[in-house]
Amino acid sequence: MKNYYVAKSRRVRSTPYTSRIENQGVTAYSVYNHMLLPAAFGSLEDSYHHLKEHVQIWDVAGERQVEIIGKDAAKLVQLMTCRDLSKSKIGRCYYCPIIDDKAGLINDPVVLKLREDRWWISVADSDVILFAKGLAIGKNFDVKIFEPNVDILAVQGPKSFRLMEKIFGTKTTEMKFFGFDYFEFEGVKHLIAKSGWSKQGGFEIYVENTKSGLALYDKLFELGKEFNVKPGCPNLIERIESALLSYGNDMDNNDNPFECGLDKFVHLDSNINFLGKEKLKEVRKKGINKKLMGVIIDTNEISVSKSINLTNDENLIIGELRSGGYSPHFKKVIGIAMLNKPYYEVSQKFKISINDEVFEGKVCDLPFI
Amino acid sequence: MKNYYVAKSRRVRSTPYTSRIENQGVTAYSVYNHMLLPAAFGSLEDSYHHLKEHVQIWDVAGERQVEIIGKDAAKLVQLMTCRDLSKSKIGRCYYCPIIDDKAGLINDPVVLKLREDRWWISVADSDVILFAKGLAIGKNFDVKIFEPNVDILAVQGPKSFRLMEKIFGTKTTEMKFFGFDYFEFEGVKHLIAKSGWSKQGGFEIYVENTKSGLALYDKLFELGKEFNVKPGCPNLIERIESALLSYGNDMDNNDNPFECGLDKFVHLDSNINFLGKEKLKEVRKKGINKKLMGVIIDTNEISVSKSINLTNDENLIIGELRSGGYSPHFKKVIGIAMLNKPYYEVSQKFKISINDEVFEGKVCDLPFI
Repeated sequence: MKNYYVAKSRRVRSTPYTSRIENQGVTAYSVYNHMLLPAAFGSLEDSYHHLKEHVQIWDVAGERQVEIIGKDAAKLVQLMTCRDLSKSKIGRCYYCPIIDDKAGLINDPVVLKLREDRWWISVADSDVILFAKGLAIGKNFDVKIFEPNVDILAVQGPKSFRLMEKIFGTKTTEMKFFGFDYFEFEGVKHLIAKSGWSKQGGFEIYVENTKSGLALYDKLFELGKEFNVKPGCPNLIERIESALLSYGNDMDNNDNPFECGLDKFVHLDSNINFLGKEKLKEVRKKGINKKLMGVIIDTNEISVSKSINLTNDENLIIGELRSGGYSPHFKKVIGIAMLNKPYYEVSQKFKISINDEVFEGKVCDLPFI
Repeated sequence: MKNYYVAKSRRVRSTPYTSRIENQGVTAYSVYNHMLLPAAFGSLEDSYHHLKEHVQIWDVAGERQVEIIGKDAAKLVQLMTCRDLSKSKIGRCYYCPIIDDKAGLINDPVVLKLREDRWWISVADSDVILFAKGLAIGKNFDVKIFEPNVDILAVQGPKSFRLMEKIFGTKTTEMKFFGFDYFEFEGVKHLIAKSGWSKQGGFEIYVENTKSGLALYDKLFELGKEFNVKPGCPNLIERIESALLSYGNDMDNNDNPFECGLDKFVHLDSNINFLGKEKLKEVRKKGINKKLMGVIIDTNEISVSKSINLTNDENLIIGELRSGGYSPHFKKVIGIAMLNKPYYEVSQKFKISINDEVFEGKVCDLPFI
């Protein structure tokens, strides 16, 4: 597969860490929320192994925040998600599918409750801020909505705990998963959450003070030497193995939360008010017509830049592959696919054509590991 | 400046033309509305000269459409823009700043009136569809909002007229600027507008039937041989010379239409109802504090990947450069900059540091040519 350069411009925003990661060997970018998101530091497979054994620092500033503050903040946040937030606690993160009135997914952010009347929506790649603004204006809600100056640094990998303890003490490791708190670094407070887009453990530092964040970035590399720290980024293979879904890749506005296996975040029987609730009740009653599943393919190379059809023995299209990569763990290509009814059963076999060659595969449960 | 690869995935959508332009030598991409937008076919300067002399075919499928259809469609479209559309006509395109309730720019699309109750918003790089959905839900408007399957092909350059005549007849060239109509190609109707993101003349073909669009793509190259047709893309230099503003580059949500020199599209004295109207009246009364202007810089190389400060003799920051490139016409770097009050006057001098070297420049009117 041929490579193409990314054209830089102000519209595709740099992050405070861009010059650092470019000195450290970033080789490819994606664009996420109109911002550069590092996509590779050389070999994807080397990064995969390193992430599973050591600790990496990620520039994930592209995970922008939508701040919603004011009297109606909680009402607006709840309106946008099918997850019941009525018992949510300050200092906790919540994975929340955001859907529209037709129950189509708009985003799948992590929502941080900062105060009863102040929330951050840490968004995947779509302009949730515009949806929130439109709703707030239309409903005449008493809120302020804006993108605060927050540029997340993720510290991921099994050695992230020891590294963070060296800087911030044991209070970091004592935090519960998806908890967050404020920690001081050289006199500046940083919001740090026990979270991140890998299943190898770690933290996300919500950097508001850029100067302090850059000093912290350098400190992480300095103190991280003994843990074999490296710069990194969300890893395609690791995140597929762990079934961390990617909005825009694995699911989009044409899919509803049930079709994406997000059932446990859909609270239809509570008395909360959210968009798409009636539509989702209908879906629950009638059943879904497609479902996101794992797939294993009998080959060891793939590059997915768009959906690839999956067919059965009768050459009928039974689904489409949406993400995929070679897994060193399975020694095969694994991926995430949307399978049509009734083909979304474990062990369902299919064929897939990759670069004009046909391979066999089978459906499996998520996550892989 | 070092180059980085673009990481492809389903989230960064390919277009129907992607495989063609890759065979034809595209070298760099930007990402626009979550879609690949070609950014270079080799030398920017060669493409610039070619565009000004011949004809180019552009894959600008990234200019996505937001279709708004239904009883309240016109009301919703008007609510989003400060341009008075009450006398708008079917079959015409309208450049319309879209602003929020604080008068901050959200997009600057071309709006096509297809019917009284059916509109396309041909958007720059932000998810206007989410803003429209939020507003429609909040206001309980009777509309359907979706992204139709439309992938624009632009035919740009002085020889575009003769090329289009060869395929569609003289009716194409007889259309007025920003008019549109339906034209048949091998039995399939295509909406074609006399428009495009260059000042060299041309058309935009709103391809809904992908199969026919691909055949048309090939036909344009076949019949275009005698006009020296080449694949191309919006050209940074040409568009700056022509002062075609780029949302996200030259302006963003922190700017209002007056600050961007879009005064003629702001209709405060009509009795139409749009968001941000009161705020804009306030701005008109108090005056603006910054303004987009042209700049000419005494150097012949620049690569703008983020805002670059402009300073005066007292080392005070008086503005920021937002786009720039070397103009073969002026034999200098030209650009678009946001200048603070009172420095947005023609001939205002400034200094700018590019790669640690300081250059002199001066402010000028837009457009350059």
